[in-house]
Amino acid sequence: MKITKDLYHGSLALLTDFYQLTMAYAYWKSDKGEQEAVFNLFFRKHPFQGGFTLAAGLDYVIDYCRNFRFGKEDLEYLSKMKAPDGSPQFEKGFIDYLSKLKFTCDIDAVEEGTVVFPNAPMIRVRGPLIQCQLLETPLLNLFNFQTLIATKAARINLAAKGEPVLEFGLRRAQGIDGALAASRAAYIGGCTSTSNVMAGKLFGIPVSGTHAHSWIMSFESELEAFEAYADAFPDQCVFLVDTYDTINGVKNAIKVGEILRSKGKEMIGIRIDSGDLAYYSNKAREMLDEAGFPEAKIVASNDLDENIIHSLKGQEASVNVWGVGTKLVTAYDQPALGAVYKLSAVKEESGEWVPKIKISQQSLKINIPGIHNVKRYYSNGKAVADMIYLEDQEINPRGTVIIDPTDATRRKRIMPAFYKEEELLKPIFKNGKLVYKSPKIKDIRERAQNQLASFDKTHKRIVNPHLYPVGLEENLHHMRMNLVLKAKQMENGEA
Amino acid sequence: MKITKDLYHGSLALLTDFYQLTMAYAYWKSDKGEQEAVFNLFFRKHPFQGGFTLAAGLDYVIDYCRNFRFGKEDLEYLSKMKAPDGSPQFEKGFIDYLSKLKFTCDIDAVEEGTVVFPNAPMIRVRGPLIQCQLLETPLLNLFNFQTLIATKAARINLAAKGEPVLEFGLRRAQGIDGALAASRAAYIGGCTSTSNVMAGKLFGIPVSGTHAHSWIMSFESELEAFEAYADAFPDQCVFLVDTYDTINGVKNAIKVGEILRSKGKEMIGIRIDSGDLAYYSNKAREMLDEAGFPEAKIVASNDLDENIIHSLKGQEASVNVWGVGTKLVTAYDQPALGAVYKLSAVKEESGEWVPKIKISQQSLKINIPGIHNVKRYYSNGKAVADMIYLEDQEINPRGTVIIDPTDATRRKRIMPAFYKEEELLKPIFKNGKLVYKSPKIKDIRERAQNQLASFDKTHKRIVNPHLYPVGLEENLHHMRMNLVLKAKQMENGEA
Repeated sequence: MKITKDLYHGSLALLTDFYQLTMAYAYWKSDKGEQEAVFNLFFRKHPFQGGFTLAAGLDYVIDYCRNFRFGKEDLEYLSKMKAPDGSPQFEKGFIDYLSKLKFTCDIDAVEEGTVVFPNAPMIRVRGPLIQCQLLETPLLNLFNFQTLIATKAARINLAAKGEPVLEFGLRRAQGIDGALAASRAAYIGGCTSTSNVMAGKLFGIPVSGTHAHSWIMSFESELEAFEAYADAFPDQCVFLVDTYDTINGVKNAIKVGEILRSKGKEMIGIRIDSGDLAYYSNKAREMLDEAGFPEAKIVASNDLDENIIHSLKGQEASVNVWGVGTKLVTAYDQPALGAVYKLSAVKEESGEWVPKIKISQQSLKINIPGIHNVKRYYSNGKAVADMIYLEDQEINPRGTVIIDPTDATRRKRIMPAFYKEEELLKPIFKNGKLVYKSPKIKDIRERAQNQLASFDKTHKRIVNPHLYPVGLEENLHHMRMNLVLKAKQMENGEA
Repeated sequence: MKITKDLYHGSLALLTDFYQLTMAYAYWKSDKGEQEAVFNLFFRKHPFQGGFTLAAGLDYVIDYCRNFRFGKEDLEYLSKMKAPDGSPQFEKGFIDYLSKLKFTCDIDAVEEGTVVFPNAPMIRVRGPLIQCQLLETPLLNLFNFQTLIATKAARINLAAKGEPVLEFGLRRAQGIDGALAASRAAYIGGCTSTSNVMAGKLFGIPVSGTHAHSWIMSFESELEAFEAYADAFPDQCVFLVDTYDTINGVKNAIKVGEILRSKGKEMIGIRIDSGDLAYYSNKAREMLDEAGFPEAKIVASNDLDENIIHSLKGQEASVNVWGVGTKLVTAYDQPALGAVYKLSAVKEESGEWVPKIKISQQSLKINIPGIHNVKRYYSNGKAVADMIYLEDQEINPRGTVIIDPTDATRRKRIMPAFYKEEELLKPIFKNGKLVYKSPKIKDIRERAQNQLASFDKTHKRIVNPHLYPVGLEENLHHMRMNLVLKAKQMENGEA
């Protein structure tokens, strides 16, 4: 096995669950493969017990779909698979079908950097059943993770209240692109830079970093190590002060800061990576100020997340820059978003679209049937509500009611005529053709900032946020209710 | 940005923290780049509050090191980086140095599928400072994650007590190889198969899967959907019964099971993916038995992990096969292992190796100095203790004492002459040349099973495991103590 040779440079069509292929085969056998369907990708609950989620990952999805094809090796692998009785798992006709398969779906999706809410589609795929099905797993994989990390990054940046947050999670990330994709999403979510040089190169995001404890340890003394570093980077010195003893480390940093100053240079600051960050940052601030370095920054790191940053700020820690790794890139307190991808409509031979429902003992798991889009309403620049509606439904501009899909007693009257509105799902692919131009990552990051700014701060609170209203347009709500009741009758054998 | 074109098919040398490059540059500037050093990769605490950890990821590390080189694009990227004053971040001489850099280190490591313990080196790198430093981040990234997932998988398989565990986490995994590497590690840890077809192809591990709710929903009725699936895969039917109503779903599965039987085929079983798994599995078992399908398997899934499986077994749920996704591939309850990579010795110009220590306010963070290896002692086929020792230290076969590195009051007398012993770090690279042949993944999986079998079951308990003794050989312990005390004097300015 060669990661660097066999991986990621060819087809990614097999990056899917085996059951997508068995279903594809069974659709093909049942002559249903080309039947059109609509699937929605959405999540059911904000991560981190938060009040918002920040969408990211669309650029990966676009790339995946554009390059979607079964390569020669893929087809060989599939044609050699055996059923339990030793016969080929898939008929040759199906392998031929796959070899000619071209991506022809329509995809509509929220743009990266959009604030999104539970149950509303983030990606809508419309196309032949087989294609929709094969795309389920990779789309979830790619979108789930980046959305999770962008959201985590946004929360951490909110806690840091505008102070720079540096992401350096590579060493603890879940695999190579568990790191790369995380660095990208963290930047979108508001981080200033990444430590991951490859992410910097691939995505064009700023990289940053200074030195490690090993730098210090490789010298006879800390002072000598600081001096050598200052020789190499006179303009970029952030000294890591806690290899042996933090207070003594700050003293040594000040000594070298004075040497630098005598040469017309200024140290940038110090970094503290262990111990009580509130205590040591304040102590270091005092020492730096007294020594005539009031501009020297204090960088803090060591298993930080939004909660610890919030707490350190509450304790008036003298931290100016936050270094965040593990807790950000793995979304430590909730390492999976849990978005799902559900069938919501199929096109009958008659040409009619039939909405589809799935019932569950867990009512949270009942999907929203039909073909929908989402409208966001703004009043005075502030988002006031999101409405999920059937795309062919006319909305009464003088008033409609939206109903929470998980609690029908939560309702809100909407007067579209009084609001500015925005449709959240944008066309990305039409019949397999890309019709969307991805923004630059800088612009995605800026979009995220603007989107976040358009929501009241109560929705962005880190703990116990105020619930933003998202509901089904009333006609959609009624249609769904009727389908659920009908399905429940059917399954009891009453229909 | 094209994932499928730009990623993973070229050099991965930039998959490192920027500070490794700034340090490399500063070492180069200080003429220390070629100074030899020893770094150890180890973790400080078992994940999941467990009693053991299962090493995995070495094959990725080997591949990374074999292909280690700065490619043309990497060098271009680095040479264009700017310092804050607009001058080039790195001098041209350094870029030239990197362009010629070849991997020349010695690497010793534990084999994949080895049971490992806190503080003992899993990988030891010996070579020029610059190379050791550049390897820190990728080695941690690659080894941390697979070791974490292999351990999680082993725990889940222990809870399942030999019943098959199917891994299907791709959709919730952290990125593309967050999934691929997880599938590999999960298989090593004992899982039977993966749903990830690409992982199956790349690593040669078994794949499995049946169908989703969308299969059912795309038909007029569940019965019709089951029938169509049975037509496509008469020998491989595991019917997902909970799209509308689990009990009714089991009834439909039985109906189609009878049709299959009339054609001389047998359904494999059913899958339940929601609701109360204890209740529904028992109910389904009853129904299947009464209907004459006592051999039909019941597959359960829905956010399972070792704790839920343990609990379901305690409730005598009638589950025969366990499907595990999110909680396994993200190691949900602890999504990072937190292994570190620490300098432990440098070679002086005199040729003498000098052990190195790092002090910390957190005593857990004080490293183990020197060049070590680890011996595991066995008595009657059972592992009794691991000893970390200085490689050039002679061990008295008639008796030595090992001392817990985090609690010097925990000691154990070892009588090497009475035990079988195994050295855990094996030579992998010598002067940059691969001297190790990676076993097949099947054999790694088997090694893991054998390793686990050699430990008493009290160490493998899911909750509150018994602590396995791991300690420093007494001479190493004393050397470390002296270095700590000396460093603490130095930092107080007393030396």
